[in-house]
Amino acid sequence: MAVEKTMDKIVSLCKTRGFVFPGSEIYGGLANTWDYGPLGVEFKNNVKKAWWKKFIQESPYNVGLDSAILMNPEVWVASGHVGGFSDPLMDCKECKTRYRADKLIEDFMKNQGVENPIVDGWSNEKMKQYIDENGIACPECGAKNFTDIRQFNLMFKTFQGVTEDSKALVYLRPETAQGIFVNFKNVQRTTRKKLPFGIGQIGKSFRNEITPGNFTFRTREFEQMELEFFCKPGEDLKWFEYWKEFCKNWLLSLGMKEENIRLRDHSKEELSHYSNATTDIEYKFPFGWGELWGIADRTDFDLKQHINHSGEELVYFDPETNEKIVPYCIEPSVGADRVALAFLVDAYDEEELEGGDVRTVLRLHPALAPFKAAVLPLSKKLSDEAFKVYEMLSKKFMVDFDETGSIGKRYRRQDEIGTPFCITFDFDSLNDNSVTIRDRDTMTQVRIPIAEVAKYIEERLEF
Amino acid sequence: MAVEKTMDKIVSLCKTRGFVFPGSEIYGGLANTWDYGPLGVEFKNNVKKAWWKKFIQESPYNVGLDSAILMNPEVWVASGHVGGFSDPLMDCKECKTRYRADKLIEDFMKNQGVENPIVDGWSNEKMKQYIDENGIACPECGAKNFTDIRQFNLMFKTFQGVTEDSKALVYLRPETAQGIFVNFKNVQRTTRKKLPFGIGQIGKSFRNEITPGNFTFRTREFEQMELEFFCKPGEDLKWFEYWKEFCKNWLLSLGMKEENIRLRDHSKEELSHYSNATTDIEYKFPFGWGELWGIADRTDFDLKQHINHSGEELVYFDPETNEKIVPYCIEPSVGADRVALAFLVDAYDEEELEGGDVRTVLRLHPALAPFKAAVLPLSKKLSDEAFKVYEMLSKKFMVDFDETGSIGKRYRRQDEIGTPFCITFDFDSLNDNSVTIRDRDTMTQVRIPIAEVAKYIEERLEF
Repeated sequence: MAVEKTMDKIVSLCKTRGFVFPGSEIYGGLANTWDYGPLGVEFKNNVKKAWWKKFIQESPYNVGLDSAILMNPEVWVASGHVGGFSDPLMDCKECKTRYRADKLIEDFMKNQGVENPIVDGWSNEKMKQYIDENGIACPECGAKNFTDIRQFNLMFKTFQGVTEDSKALVYLRPETAQGIFVNFKNVQRTTRKKLPFGIGQIGKSFRNEITPGNFTFRTREFEQMELEFFCKPGEDLKWFEYWKEFCKNWLLSLGMKEENIRLRDHSKEELSHYSNATTDIEYKFPFGWGELWGIADRTDFDLKQHINHSGEELVYFDPETNEKIVPYCIEPSVGADRVALAFLVDAYDEEELEGGDVRTVLRLHPALAPFKAAVLPLSKKLSDEAFKVYEMLSKKFMVDFDETGSIGKRYRRQDEIGTPFCITFDFDSLNDNSVTIRDRDTMTQVRIPIAEVAKYIEERLEF
Repeated sequence: MAVEKTMDKIVSLCKTRGFVFPGSEIYGGLANTWDYGPLGVEFKNNVKKAWWKKFIQESPYNVGLDSAILMNPEVWVASGHVGGFSDPLMDCKECKTRYRADKLIEDFMKNQGVENPIVDGWSNEKMKQYIDENGIACPECGAKNFTDIRQFNLMFKTFQGVTEDSKALVYLRPETAQGIFVNFKNVQRTTRKKLPFGIGQIGKSFRNEITPGNFTFRTREFEQMELEFFCKPGEDLKWFEYWKEFCKNWLLSLGMKEENIRLRDHSKEELSHYSNATTDIEYKFPFGWGELWGIADRTDFDLKQHINHSGEELVYFDPETNEKIVPYCIEPSVGADRVALAFLVDAYDEEELEGGDVRTVLRLHPALAPFKAAVLPLSKKLSDEAFKVYEMLSKKFMVDFDETGSIGKRYRRQDEIGTPFCITFDFDSLNDNSVTIRDRDTMTQVRIPIAEVAKYIEERLEF
């Protein structure tokens, strides 16, 4: 029997067990902000570590970066964000509800049976005309009386220094990518990397979305994991395929089910004018397919923009041909919060046990699980001795120690938060220096010497 | 011969080797913002991991949290930041230079021979009067003609949503601590922790400082590592001492030299009205002693503020006495960028070798070093085989692979970036499956089977 996974169940588990809390909850919250609780911070950190391990640490091509959130505003002029990073908004004149015109049209088209309606790139006039001609009504009040469409920039503004004039205006970065492009020369010079090579970064970005929602799927403050991979022109499509496969395999290697993933290539009309190819990896969320990872061949667009605006020579000197090259760039960009949510949804399961009981179990890959193990003394009399096992293991990885309630109840608790291994310390343990390790997924048990427990678990964390 | 450590040398090494670059450099920078380069991001991540390991992972008391940067503005009313988090500013009427009045007075007092002048808590009027009575002049132009002092709030403001009115106003958090206090109940409920317990968090904060400076010591955007440790009233001073020792030992365990650290207790006059005790751990930077870690006994001030403003019952139910308690709180708060800078300064060394050569060496604790090892094939003919050693090790930790230049030159390069172990793969390695490991600090070498290298290094990363 297939489990019905609903967002309500996921959100409720997150709140009850300490994965994710509503932000500023005691003050009534703040429009779709979320705080990661004790389990959530471990889980999300594990997702970030898993990305860093495969994209930076183990990669012979890539190096890391951590650039500042506040950047010189000229960066966003060059990148095109000041001019073009905006949503088309309009209000219903009757009930005053505000809409994104493109989304309204896409929803209308979907209702008409269009499978993947793409309104990206339409002018305000074209959208307005479409809405009028098709008689699209306000979903709230039914009126057909909208204001004109105007573009609203999505960058958060703030002011640095003591005055609030245009000289002090800075933006919260809407993406981490530009921090990489502006450091292209610094990184290439100090690492002496040859093409192809990449620069990866994990960090917060901010977008003043009109309609954030779907839990942590779309939030105004979010964390990105971005790689900008530089290669020779002409080799870009080869590397585009390489990173597309690499990203998909990363998801699969961490246990995400293939049937819940699909790759969607952007059509010619949908492609940005500078892009040679773009593919979205989408995940099947309870609310529908949602973009997880955008992999784009951005050609030399970004570096050239910065060359033109800064006057700096952001080029690569090819020692083989003695030529200066503006490299092409492949950008695999994924949201840490979003992919963490996908892993959570994917891992969620309700399993009917012998006897009719149902257990909720998060089948997270051990590398992603908040706790790698839980130490459970069979009796409170054994707590002191069992605690020594906890102390030993906690030097290696995150471990829980739980001595309250029946063993069965403790297993359920750990199942629900995805702990892959439960270590029971019983009275025999005092004599044979061994413990019983119970596997979360199979519920089978093995007896193992205490001295070998750390190794047993560490081997199973690899991916 | 003692090495003269200057900030110039540190900044230069950081820029040349890829630890830290000026932010938005190709656009002329942005007032004291900095980007961590490929080595810097690894190094700073290691500092954060080392904090998390000791303060969260290995601690039986503490759990982690990751709350949002954007919070409901009421949080900052309750915390006192809207009302009181400000600097006293005044301008020289002649040359228009802007000053923090308190800093100007402190500098004046220092010149008069006062060792630790504290102007904290003086009213604007008192400061103005002191400046007039002592005839303090503008350091820039020498005039004695200042404007009145006015308070300037240090919080960055931004606007969320489509309007820029007071309803949309939000702040970039000036500290991570309040994210912990507002989640006190959520965390206690979901973890079922008993007093004493702590909640720790690492994250970015923002303060609109008038005079950022000293490289990464004081920046407007910075990263904090904060713990709020809750205990029963009356037990607070005991735990205050505990965490003071714990923080100091953390620094020492990671190799910071004791002679470069001092603990400075706040005097009665200096203490915040709600604090029972506060101690700063200071580090001897090239520019003088600077605050590294503030450890404060904040009593029940913060929780009570939030109880009063939110109407929520942020209390702990004591199962032993059946009473509701508002816990007291000890706050050890340290800046990640700042303590990373201190580790860097502390590790910097120039050593005269036999023959008169001088090597620059970063004597970083292996746990903090960006690369744990570098694999160096003795000849390019050995590159393919040596690369297999690199690949094997890179699954465990960050490793460099360097095949250019003489071995001596490569040792110098690795010394300068703090790599603790250089692994030389020579022609014998092809037969004996062993490599030579050279220690950064002692420069001694040992021969070890390739199969044992990972373990050899991993043992030395522990702290």
